[in-house]
Amino acid sequence: MRAEIIAVGTELLLGQITNTNATFLSKELAGLGIDVFHHTVVGDNPERLKEVLRVAEKRSDLIIFSGGLGPTKDDMTKQTIANYLGKDLVLDQPTMDQVLAYHQKIKKEMPENNKMQAMVIEGSTVLPNTTGLAAGMFLQHQDTCLLLLPGPPNELYPMFLNTGKQLLLPLLGQQEFLLSRVLRFYGIGESKLATLLDDLIENQTNPTLATYAGTYEVTLRLTAKANSESEANLLLDDLENQVQSLVGSYFYGYGDQNSLPQVVVQALQKHQLTITAAESLTGGLFQSELASIPGASKIFPGGFVTYSPEAKSSLLAISPHIIEQEGVVSEACAKAMAEHVRAKMATDIGVSLTGVAGPDELEQQPAGTVWIGLASKGKEPTAYLYHFAHQRNGNRERAVLTAFDLVRKYLEKHC
Amino acid sequence: MRAEIIAVGTELLLGQITNTNATFLSKELAGLGIDVFHHTVVGDNPERLKEVLRVAEKRSDLIIFSGGLGPTKDDMTKQTIANYLGKDLVLDQPTMDQVLAYHQKIKKEMPENNKMQAMVIEGSTVLPNTTGLAAGMFLQHQDTCLLLLPGPPNELYPMFLNTGKQLLLPLLGQQEFLLSRVLRFYGIGESKLATLLDDLIENQTNPTLATYAGTYEVTLRLTAKANSESEANLLLDDLENQVQSLVGSYFYGYGDQNSLPQVVVQALQKHQLTITAAESLTGGLFQSELASIPGASKIFPGGFVTYSPEAKSSLLAISPHIIEQEGVVSEACAKAMAEHVRAKMATDIGVSLTGVAGPDELEQQPAGTVWIGLASKGKEPTAYLYHFAHQRNGNRERAVLTAFDLVRKYLEKHC
Repeated sequence: MRAEIIAVGTELLLGQITNTNATFLSKELAGLGIDVFHHTVVGDNPERLKEVLRVAEKRSDLIIFSGGLGPTKDDMTKQTIANYLGKDLVLDQPTMDQVLAYHQKIKKEMPENNKMQAMVIEGSTVLPNTTGLAAGMFLQHQDTCLLLLPGPPNELYPMFLNTGKQLLLPLLGQQEFLLSRVLRFYGIGESKLATLLDDLIENQTNPTLATYAGTYEVTLRLTAKANSESEANLLLDDLENQVQSLVGSYFYGYGDQNSLPQVVVQALQKHQLTITAAESLTGGLFQSELASIPGASKIFPGGFVTYSPEAKSSLLAISPHIIEQEGVVSEACAKAMAEHVRAKMATDIGVSLTGVAGPDELEQQPAGTVWIGLASKGKEPTAYLYHFAHQRNGNRERAVLTAFDLVRKYLEKHC
Repeated sequence: MRAEIIAVGTELLLGQITNTNATFLSKELAGLGIDVFHHTVVGDNPERLKEVLRVAEKRSDLIIFSGGLGPTKDDMTKQTIANYLGKDLVLDQPTMDQVLAYHQKIKKEMPENNKMQAMVIEGSTVLPNTTGLAAGMFLQHQDTCLLLLPGPPNELYPMFLNTGKQLLLPLLGQQEFLLSRVLRFYGIGESKLATLLDDLIENQTNPTLATYAGTYEVTLRLTAKANSESEANLLLDDLENQVQSLVGSYFYGYGDQNSLPQVVVQALQKHQLTITAAESLTGGLFQSELASIPGASKIFPGGFVTYSPEAKSSLLAISPHIIEQEGVVSEACAKAMAEHVRAKMATDIGVSLTGVAGPDELEQQPAGTVWIGLASKGKEPTAYLYHFAHQRNGNRERAVLTAFDLVRKYLEKHC
């Protein structure tokens, strides 16, 4: 099966955004064993889209479109394809209900053009949009299958993973069972992970494995083809064992929709432990990540952002001796912050983050220098030193993830 | 002049790398006033590359190729193009000297296949590679110009900027000046903005204007063509005046690299005012956004995350009467949090965020209900009610941006 990905959007041709949808879809299709032979990008122009479609139809069995399904004038993908195929657009009532419910909820009148998001090509299977309003579509026309997906990655990714992939499976001839398992790693780069797994990657047939670089983490997708789910799971178990024996020390969890904060919040809930934090350079980001996980209120009462040295003294009673003699970017300060905030909030665990976000240095220490403190009821507090080499906000984000990884390892060891 | 960018490389079609070269080149060509109408990606396959070239030659005046100029077996861009054009590959001695010198320097024997990097299509202008070994090429064939660049971005970018761009300038008929201005809006959706600007968008010629949906905000790009920068600025001023008269109440700032937190931090710095916050549902995200802007320490000493009702009492002394009678999701609680945190941190401005992130309701109020409080030294605190309709973290992010917008408007009015 030969596939082609057509992205529609003038903003791509102006270089304002990058076609990461093509990267995502290509990787997914490769995992399904579908050959992608072309990517095409064309602007919001009906004549040029039709010309591109004419070329694609001749050479491809599957054409996946991204973009141009929204409500504004320059969104014209489905209109143009319908016109090309000699089909009408018809109202999809479930999508229309969703669009109306959205506007009722935000208590705003629905602009008339929003109705367009619920119009679909007649005879197509509608793909619901769980993170936006524009519906997706799947249809067969003569020998070609067409899949229309919205442009924003946060709508396209879940729509493809939740619905699009399933619609493609029957096209793949053999009725095989396809099962994926995603392993997540922190503290190792993609190229180092790939090097350590070199033999497994070189010799992959079934299951296959592919690395993906996320934001400061790496994921590994293992995909097995088999006659049944249990057979596929056996194949995945075997490969995962080999992977874990090589890089298991960086592994933190499973699944596409997972993260270090989620793993930590779940572990705290499981062990009925509470946590708090005192943050300097991260300015509240660690706590915000805790609060981003549903159910966080069971394990997190709140905490402090002690950004200035004065706030560290006045809110957490860090002694002037530590601040003046050792500095705020120090082991002593990190330990005191973690222990004082833990005691003040009466939680089981206290975390502190203090360091130099950048761009400028602080206390003669370079940007990226970070101390993370960890206090636990009835134990001596500890602190760890890191040197990150990102920009200001990269250093802040790495510090937060590293703090979560420290808490995860602590819970793994002590619970 | 119509341009097309053809990237050659199977790794792009497997989703192993993203076509960022197309983004870079598109932006550069837009800056030169050259219209890019297509991006194409094709694998390391001579037949498919020829087919793509055949299509491109018919519709484009300029074709820029990236990738496939290296020494290995799968590099076949120039060989295929030479074959298509009926031309030979010839040795370029300066490139050959560079390849030999490189191998002398690293004290390794030159692999025989490295000679291929110095072979160029006969009759082409050679573009030297300052960061790698493979030479670039520029040639005209009938009505089409072809520019061949290497695939690695660290070779392609400097080769285009140092040499490629200069080779394109003579093709550009008139020497027009192209200038863009980006306007940023918060509190209005893309479709509503487009509706309000409908007449301007419909009748655009020069300057042009285009809307882009960002994360919870909208940007508008105005682009003018003129004979000089000052003439282009006059055209942009005139169009911007029309835009501002229609949607100016949602406008918050200029530029591609700007954000509401940045505008607020800069305004606070300018007026030498300090700010703090007490956050419930947002769990520290407002403060983290403040801390994300360099120089935030001048205007932000720190603050509180009062996630649980108990933390609101113990850390901010919110009276039990308010929490029990009015609830934590209330105007009274938002006002008290803002005023108490402002007083406790001794800042000029205090912000509070309290509400229901979701997915569950709280105090019989639905997810998305948010009160934002604003306190200012010597004034009565105020609070504002919002109903957001996103998922948990969308509601949290919208609450934070809305709080920044409130502070921005407050400063605009009172400073």
